[in-house]
Amino acid sequence: MSLVIVGSIALDTVETPFGKVNEVPGGSSIYASMASRYFCKTKIVGVVGEDYPTDILLLLNDNDICTQGVEFSKGKTFRWKGIYHDLKQAETLDTQLNVFADFDPQIPENYKNAEFVFLGNIDPALQLKVLDRMKNPKITACDSMNFWITGKKEKLINVIKRVDILFINEDELKMFTGEKNIYKAAEIMEIYNLKLLVIKLGEYGALALNKDLFFFTPVYPLKKVIDTTGAGDCFAGGFMGYLAGQGKFDEMTIRNAMVYGTIMASFNIQDFSIEGLKNITKQEIRDRKEKIKRSVFF
Amino acid sequence: MSLVIVGSIALDTVETPFGKVNEVPGGSSIYASMASRYFCKTKIVGVVGEDYPTDILLLLNDNDICTQGVEFSKGKTFRWKGIYHDLKQAETLDTQLNVFADFDPQIPENYKNAEFVFLGNIDPALQLKVLDRMKNPKITACDSMNFWITGKKEKLINVIKRVDILFINEDELKMFTGEKNIYKAAEIMEIYNLKLLVIKLGEYGALALNKDLFFFTPVYPLKKVIDTTGAGDCFAGGFMGYLAGQGKFDEMTIRNAMVYGTIMASFNIQDFSIEGLKNITKQEIRDRKEKIKRSVFF
Repeated sequence: MSLVIVGSIALDTVETPFGKVNEVPGGSSIYASMASRYFCKTKIVGVVGEDYPTDILLLLNDNDICTQGVEFSKGKTFRWKGIYHDLKQAETLDTQLNVFADFDPQIPENYKNAEFVFLGNIDPALQLKVLDRMKNPKITACDSMNFWITGKKEKLINVIKRVDILFINEDELKMFTGEKNIYKAAEIMEIYNLKLLVIKLGEYGALALNKDLFFFTPVYPLKKVIDTTGAGDCFAGGFMGYLAGQGKFDEMTIRNAMVYGTIMASFNIQDFSIEGLKNITKQEIRDRKEKIKRSVFF
Repeated sequence: MSLVIVGSIALDTVETPFGKVNEVPGGSSIYASMASRYFCKTKIVGVVGEDYPTDILLLLNDNDICTQGVEFSKGKTFRWKGIYHDLKQAETLDTQLNVFADFDPQIPENYKNAEFVFLGNIDPALQLKVLDRMKNPKITACDSMNFWITGKKEKLINVIKRVDILFINEDELKMFTGEKNIYKAAEIMEIYNLKLLVIKLGEYGALALNKDLFFFTPVYPLKKVIDTTGAGDCFAGGFMGYLAGQGKFDEMTIRNAMVYGTIMASFNIQDFSIEGLKNITKQEIRDRKEKIKRSVFF
């Protein structure tokens, strides 16, 4: 089955302790799709300006990612500039919304029947529009960020009430619920009737919870991490891609999706931008899965 | 087989967001032994002052913990006072070493043949003395803390070179090695030829590493944590107790020991002092093990 991903498309300028890159491919839909495409047919929705390099779009197409939903708008592409002091959290130096400021996600006709939908962390008002415009997806998921939790919480709650899966990182969950204990915070989230809550713990792994499931996956251990930009998007992309590829949402599929999400994030953070996601072999993915499996076996 | 635990014996005054307790049983040998005794014959070494409540010693004896190695010294018992603002890290408000200042661990004759030894986080000079005074233990382990890493690193290195297992928390490991990536830091530790490095990640679980093993255990999820004092000691106590109970140090025993350590820490943090460790049933331990197992199964 296929997956529609809606999110930002950006040109990122990023500095980490391991180097600096200028105006490289970034944005949630780019990261998520480059991860999901290993598992399923992926279609993205986003907006770029007249200055967006065509070779990036060609690269996406070469990776079998459908870009029919990418709108070309008059003006410049969304730009983000950040610096990581310790690879845990980026400090934003500059954000230029440009064409992203007036983004109104249009869904091509041949996207509307997609069974799986991932809403990257864009304005919840836009996430709602996408949900309205899709026909009858089997499973929908959304991501968000502190900016929307503080700025547009009511709208975000409307999104959360309508999707099946929420991806949220630990700090955002604490902010959203006002509760420091994550298991207690997860309990508070039960009022939204999500089919699955996925809590991202960064370098410590990720948790998936619902009334029947409590699953934890550790990270894949890496001795060198170059750039963590997009890790959360790659996690969600790998996760949703695996679900869509299997066409299922049962417990074992969810457990495996958590691990595949983790694996795709691990490839991503080994290099800047989407470099680490470009040429991953099936064998490499299997090897990482096997290593994670052995790391928790007792 | 039996386990000798050497460490502090304290009267703790602790405040957490959930309450306050005054001059209650604390110290690494008390916490570790109350955890290990569920798995093996446990013997402790430590020092108390004339004011130490005999009912605590009776409680230890009732729990089948041998206290023959507890020295009664003229003066007052070691006291520690701390406050937790968020249950992650205590702020020390007061430390009165008292009789602990002149502690010279004497090992009773019937302790010297113990096969397993755990050195709680006391002065590395004392840890070395204990190693000298034991006959020929099969497996030795030590814990430490930032105070000794900054103040007595050379002595601590001498201890690390002589023990089989080092328990260290993430921040201490980073401080010790000067390396922020824990997997890289673990690699740096290889020069000490430890048989096993155990990295405690607090609320995120724990890692066990050596050249053949990479094992991760998540924590047991608790919606209410009352007081995290002694969690690391209980982890080490449960771990070492399980090894001693099995009389083995092979890979599967280590993996299970990590889980039992985690479980004992989880019982401990559900209440103040050693309250949570007093009446745990075998069934409760089995249930937590089963839940952890299911939480990482894929």
